[in-house]
Amino acid sequence: MSNSFGSLFKITTFGESHGKAIGVTVDGCPAGIDVDEAFIQSELERRKPGQSKITTQRKEPDSFDILSGVFEGKTTGTPIAMVIHNTDQKSKDYAHIAKSFRPSHADFTYQEKYGIRDYRGGGRSSARETAARVAAGALAKLALRQLGIEVFAYVSQVGELKTKKSYLELDLSKTENNIVRCPDETIAEEMIAFIDGVRKNGDTVGGVVTGVITGTPVGLGEPVFDKLHARLGSAMLGINAVKGFEYGSGFEGAKMKGSAHNDIIEKDGDQIKTLTNLSGGIQGGISNGEDIYFNVAFKPVATIMRDQDSVDQDGNKITVSGKGRHDPCVVPRAVPIVEAMSALTILDFYLLNKSTILKA
Amino acid sequence: MSNSFGSLFKITTFGESHGKAIGVTVDGCPAGIDVDEAFIQSELERRKPGQSKITTQRKEPDSFDILSGVFEGKTTGTPIAMVIHNTDQKSKDYAHIAKSFRPSHADFTYQEKYGIRDYRGGGRSSARETAARVAAGALAKLALRQLGIEVFAYVSQVGELKTKKSYLELDLSKTENNIVRCPDETIAEEMIAFIDGVRKNGDTVGGVVTGVITGTPVGLGEPVFDKLHARLGSAMLGINAVKGFEYGSGFEGAKMKGSAHNDIIEKDGDQIKTLTNLSGGIQGGISNGEDIYFNVAFKPVATIMRDQDSVDQDGNKITVSGKGRHDPCVVPRAVPIVEAMSALTILDFYLLNKSTILKA
Amino acid sequence: MSNSFGSLFKITTFGESHGKAIGVTVDGCPAGIDVDEAFIQSELERRKPGQSKITTQRKEPDSFDILSGVFEGKTTGTPIAMVIHNTDQKSKDYAHIAKSFRPSHADFTYQEKYGIRDYRGGGRSSARETAARVAAGALAKLALRQLGIEVFAYVSQVGELKTKKSYLELDLSKTENNIVRCPDETIAEEMIAFIDGVRKNGDTVGGVVTGVITGTPVGLGEPVFDKLHARLGSAMLGINAVKGFEYGSGFEGAKMKGSAHNDIIEKDGDQIKTLTNLSGGIQGGISNGEDIYFNVAFKPVATIMRDQDSVDQDGNKITVSGKGRHDPCVVPRAVPIVEAMSALTILDFYLLNKSTILKA
Amino acid sequence: MSNSFGSLFKITTFGESHGKAIGVTVDGCPAGIDVDEAFIQSELERRKPGQSKITTQRKEPDSFDILSGVFEGKTTGTPIAMVIHNTDQKSKDYAHIAKSFRPSHADFTYQEKYGIRDYRGGGRSSARETAARVAAGALAKLALRQLGIEVFAYVSQVGELKTKKSYLELDLSKTENNIVRCPDETIAEEMIAFIDGVRKNGDTVGGVVTGVITGTPVGLGEPVFDKLHARLGSAMLGINAVKGFEYGSGFEGAKMKGSAHNDIIEKDGDQIKTLTNLSGGIQGGISNGEDIYFNVAFKPVATIMRDQDSVDQDGNKITVSGKGRHDPCVVPRAVPIVEAMSALTILDFYLLNKSTILKA
Repeated sequence: MSNSFGSLFKITTFGESHGKAIGVTVDGCPAGIDVDEAFIQSELERRKPGQSKITTQRKEPDSFDILSGVFEGKTTGTPIAMVIHNTDQKSKDYAHIAKSFRPSHADFTYQEKYGIRDYRGGGRSSARETAARVAAGALAKLALRQLGIEVFAYVSQVGELKTKKSYLELDLSKTENNIVRCPDETIAEEMIAFIDGVRKNGDTVGGVVTGVITGTPVGLGEPVFDKLHARLGSAMLGINAVKGFEYGSGFEGAKMKGSAHNDIIEKDGDQIKTLTNLSGGIQGGISNGEDIYFNVAFKPVATIMRDQDSVDQDGNKITVSGKGRHDPCVVPRAVPIVEAMSALTILDFYLLNKSTILKA
Repeated sequence: MSNSFGSLFKITTFGESHGKAIGVTVDGCPAGIDVDEAFIQSELERRKPGQSKITTQRKEPDSFDILSGVFEGKTTGTPIAMVIHNTDQKSKDYAHIAKSFRPSHADFTYQEKYGIRDYRGGGRSSARETAARVAAGALAKLALRQLGIEVFAYVSQVGELKTKKSYLELDLSKTENNIVRCPDETIAEEMIAFIDGVRKNGDTVGGVVTGVITGTPVGLGEPVFDKLHARLGSAMLGINAVKGFEYGSGFEGAKMKGSAHNDIIEKDGDQIKTLTNLSGGIQGGISNGEDIYFNVAFKPVATIMRDQDSVDQDGNKITVSGKGRHDPCVVPRAVPIVEAMSALTILDFYLLNKSTILKA
Repeated sequence: MSNSFGSLFKITTFGESHGKAIGVTVDGCPAGIDVDEAFIQSELERRKPGQSKITTQRKEPDSFDILSGVFEGKTTGTPIAMVIHNTDQKSKDYAHIAKSFRPSHADFTYQEKYGIRDYRGGGRSSARETAARVAAGALAKLALRQLGIEVFAYVSQVGELKTKKSYLELDLSKTENNIVRCPDETIAEEMIAFIDGVRKNGDTVGGVVTGVITGTPVGLGEPVFDKLHARLGSAMLGINAVKGFEYGSGFEGAKMKGSAHNDIIEKDGDQIKTLTNLSGGIQGGISNGEDIYFNVAFKPVATIMRDQDSVDQDGNKITVSGKGRHDPCVVPRAVPIVEAMSALTILDFYLLNKSTILKA
Repeated sequence: MSNSFGSLFKITTFGESHGKAIGVTVDGCPAGIDVDEAFIQSELERRKPGQSKITTQRKEPDSFDILSGVFEGKTTGTPIAMVIHNTDQKSKDYAHIAKSFRPSHADFTYQEKYGIRDYRGGGRSSARETAARVAAGALAKLALRQLGIEVFAYVSQVGELKTKKSYLELDLSKTENNIVRCPDETIAEEMIAFIDGVRKNGDTVGGVVTGVITGTPVGLGEPVFDKLHARLGSAMLGINAVKGFEYGSGFEGAKMKGSAHNDIIEKDGDQIKTLTNLSGGIQGGISNGEDIYFNVAFKPVATIMRDQDSVDQDGNKITVSGKGRHDPCVVPRAVPIVEAMSALTILDFYLLNKSTILKA
């Protein structure tokens, strides 16, 4: 349960930060999808540490290996296992943190829940696990492209710095042009400088990633509990460090009146469209064909380069001190993860939707 | 899928607004829980329309009937079916909306997805369906009480009116003292007056419900995809009209630095506690024993007493006009729904957690 | 879990033998299926007790009520709840069996598992629960008919009396011509006389039901764990009193050599067919377009009209004595249940199969 | 779906016969289980080809690698990925079978279902996939041992040769004493000679494996659809080449009278026991504490060393000729697979059963 996502296009991730490998199995991938391995690798590159001065300087090569489910470059409908071997699994001495509970990390909760934990580099709770999601998400993106569906994400806020432009006013093809992955170039420069200052200070800062999904047909999403935005929200909240999710008008919508919030429906040629899109492309939990857009709030990374009071496994007072490298701001690297989880969510609903009408 | 929630304590709701009945089956309820039917009824009363001047004046008696799974006042471990019969199923003529697509309703998306829809009173997409969730949630609350776990919710914002107090500064036992269900009595009066004005104006307004869960043991929640807050968020986003979810520091946390956001761990007698609780009671997706708290944003209800342009099923331009009664602000009645979904989420994780250690 | 069957066309049954009602919810029924209520009722008639001299003489009217999911005679894609109210729920005094553990009944296992049980008429373990499956199965049959798929079942063995003809040599349209539901008329008469003798003797006898599914397209079934025959077998073994399942060559196949068992493949016009069908229409867990056929073994009903030694809940020695009416042979009434579970299995695989190819 | 088994202790297998690797992820393994890697390896040895003169002479080393979820020799509660690398993936030329549909193989059904297939050595439909099940099952066996539960399997029939002794009359510790894995030594010798003759003749033969589970507590199994024997049956029918499953009295029970079939309940010291065990240790789908026993029928392997008529993918008539090595009788190597699937089934029900009572 806990390590699977999706109902028909179902992924299961495995692996610890400093174990032998991390990886993912994809069960339910339709047959006949062209597997562009270079694309999958490029998605992994976008997530991996050490890619710029404003992310952690840790090095993880993140090259992957497809073990099954692909034959002569195409998916066969059987499970696809992808493995990313860890290279630095034995390189460090973790004795100093073996019994420490680091503030706002999952050390304490894992220990209490399981009675045992792989403490090396955060073990299973390490963000390294998200590489497996990105690999599976890349596959989902390849499938969605055949359907004319695209997923985008970008950094819209770092700390208090926030672009004032909506996604419609931005050129999303520019997201990769700067290292903070914000297509608003003016604010991007400010963000980069700010993160750099935070980093030098040994501190971290949070931010917001905005996601946009275009080309979705009408009808995706299952009403009631599996509303499109409910599962999309769950997908985002399942990413490490996420504290909030909103779509369409979001928390601002709570302040509004119905007369201002309702999206008037009109005919545009053959298509039924809405004049505005405060609904965020979803009505009653089902896509209405408009763009789907949403915000994901990330807290600042818990690992800071400062001394913090804490407690160890035996209940002794300890000081946890920052060592080595840290990631001053997680949101630039979160962009491909948000895209991956979006793609996985949408593809799964696309497949589920096929059973809505018997003969269609 | 779409109509079920939970993995071990699993509910499936059914029913349309103006069909014969709505209801719920609960599969996986532990045996031996005392079923306090008066309590379940009282929870339904908190959700039902017509309970005050600031909610819709529609009358739905919402009395329920347990068909199975309870014997001599106790649950038997077999499925519990609860049914709420609809009384006004034939009372209205819906011909005028049979083919209309109302703005920001699910008429269009249901029609496109299924090729057919029960248009009477919103059919399946009606908020009436949530009565079934409240009935099941009441059962979950009864079980949680035996474990010392309590769930609370209250209105913290209506339009721009917002309590400045955190849940810790409020007396949550006062929530039911006023009709807007806000325990901050000063702001509550303002909210009520404001909603009343909105209602007279034929308009609607959104708001925020805050949820609080106390007494949770350490260890609930499954890391990775089924993080406690991911499923809680999904539960909330599955409620009609919800546009956003945040827990702990939420979207504010995105602005913060790690040095300010980290919750320092300390020993308090025998227990390991945190000094602050920006984590919202959850670390790495697992409860840490602190209070869990979160906000849920609701958009304004789409039904307003004004004329709106739209399109019908055949693509003709139409005017949708407001008729009869409307619900000016959904949040007061959403309070028991937020509690119900919280209880269902927590109880399910409690049961799931039993399998973490073989012999425990 | 325990009370649900199916993955996309998912049913959940509820109800105890002498509670208020039994019933079923169907989640995931495709929209637009014509709901022939008379057909559903006729299927319930085939299962209900008291229909002939060789079944139990207990009377259960088994009229059903559709509460949701059907609008203007068609399914809407929302959950369909069907309820069968119990009429004799208070008519009997069950004090004498409240604490008894009847031999080869589930009294002891329910009591130990749940610590409580509804002892009236067997409670949840009563075969009465299967009426809910028949109602849902009737709906599945209606859907399958639109796809040209038919399911058949008939009694092929009662005690040692066994038809020597394969299903291909029998006219399955004659199954309903006699009360034992065996289309081999000569052996049918012997079976009826034999059951009648068993009944007069206060005893019971087992038998075998054979199932046949025709018109299945190639491709249904998921290889590995959810092989078509694995889930079909699970569906059959989930029926009360079933002790065995075999398909195609079955246990006889274990005696054979490969050279005799292999089904030679040939071209028949445009279609690829097999010369023989020892595979039972399934290869590698996937339907190959040939007829699917299988046998289901039922033990004799445990309730007999004789005194039997046993133990009560407190560990005291007791004598359980046969009282009232009993069902001398369960297989004639099991025929519609086998058909229902077959239809539910095949329809679910049909819907699942839609996601195998992305665009198909 | 198709590649997963279990609900709480959930395994997902992956891999093709001649791809890079096969493997399994185990999600939901309780934390703290000692992982005896030598034991897992020894279970794989029991399944692997080439272990005796009466199995296929193909060589597969089947050494495995644990990639995750185990730390310092113990399970951590996180997913356990185990991989078995294929060594002969490029060693053969499969051009001659790339388009052939071999009789009673899954070539045709895979091709039709997916539109593509990895034809090398049977691809996903190869029995090689069962090695992954054996690895996961070994882990389940290690957990069950801590609970005092043991699973056994042995060959009880090869072709027409059948032991006349019940499992109670046999010494199951002797199963591994001979290469056919039949603890009845007299018949074992006959079986071995018979298989050897079949092998020399280029033919294959079917057989029956009997399974026995001892030490099961009362209460395992979920009534209604997930009856212990329904899921056990599904587990067995999911093994390649299985045609039938029966438990307790099985198909013989269909011939019996209730007066002979009922298991009289008695008190044996503190325990409630049954005098006979025709129920096979399960009543109402729930274990009653007696031994669980069952038979699994295997058809003869489809690959024979003879020419057979068939059709290729383009519809041309072809002759499929036997080449290389073949497996004359699958049942000796099926013994560890039956044990593995039994262990997986029982452990999953054990974990599920923990949620039956709230506080227990």
